[in-house]
Amino acid sequence: MVRENEVRRNEVMVKRASAEHADAQLEFIGVIHTPWTSRLECPRQGRADGPVCEIEIFEPWIPALAGIEKYARYEVLYWLHQSRRDLVLQSPANDGQVRGTFALRSPVRPNPIGTSIAELVSATGGILKVRGLDCLDGTPLVDLKPDRTIFVPIAPPQKGDFQTG
Amino acid sequence: MVRENEVRRNEVMVKRASAEHADAQLEFIGVIHTPWTSRLECPRQGRADGPVCEIEIFEPWIPALAGIEKYARYEVLYWLHQSRRDLVLQSPANDGQVRGTFALRSPVRPNPIGTSIAELVSATGGILKVRGLDCLDGTPLVDLKPDRTIFVPIAPPQKGDFQTG
Repeated sequence: MVRENEVRRNEVMVKRASAEHADAQLEFIGVIHTPWTSRLECPRQGRADGPVCEIEIFEPWIPALAGIEKYARYEVLYWLHQSRRDLVLQSPANDGQVRGTFALRSPVRPNPIGTSIAELVSATGGILKVRGLDCLDGTPLVDLKPDRTIFVPIAPPQKGDFQTG
Repeated sequence: MVRENEVRRNEVMVKRASAEHADAQLEFIGVIHTPWTSRLECPRQGRADGPVCEIEIFEPWIPALAGIEKYARYEVLYWLHQSRRDLVLQSPANDGQVRGTFALRSPVRPNPIGTSIAELVSATGGILKVRGLDCLDGTPLVDLKPDRTIFVPIAPPQKGDFQTG
């Protein structure tokens, strides 16, 4: 379940003891501005020719954008702040058919982190304009890194780089 | 800086007030077993013909693997537990040249979450065997979802799916 936090037929939830499970803490480093204000309107996945959205970076992280124009596409990680986190089996079509959370890209997950590939349109100060996002207006930003398919590591090679098996 | 948490020439760090910045909490949902026990040996990026590694899922999340065999590749999110989080400018080659953290895939990031694309080799109980990872043995697992390039949403279409701009 995704749309309104309802639990649907045959879906299964677990009891989360959140206090016990604060294994690591996230700092929101920015916020994403999109045209979508309801989960009933969001794209199910971003598209490269989708609307231009804005990623606003907060201080003290703005200087970490240095060199951002070097890559055409970025991997964007964001916190799906309206999602419940306790479902292990979900029914995306609400038809009684369920599937495990890890075999879905549903926003409902134990750690509700969404990932998209965004095309960089422009970067000015702490504001990036991008296409390809699928999240709600106001979604907190967690990370931003060059798309793996166009990034070549700058650090010197290490032993593991050459290991196959 | 990556290898031993040193700060290198021209790198810039910020002061993080972690207590203030606990904006969201992660639950570690499993652990990753790899051949690499030192950051000086890890691959800089995973490779599809790399060694077979194991992803061990913890309860209560094992039932969330139902249907995992449907996809050949998964996006894996993990917590880079040995990384510092305070650098805005980094020098991956340690040559005095620096670049912003968001223009790098360095493990050193405000929220040190690594992402890899892993080929699924087998799934038995709560253990997945995969290729394509690049992380240290013992790295905590944060999320697991089908590769976006092979996943087709099951939920009914929404207005945003059709929006271009």
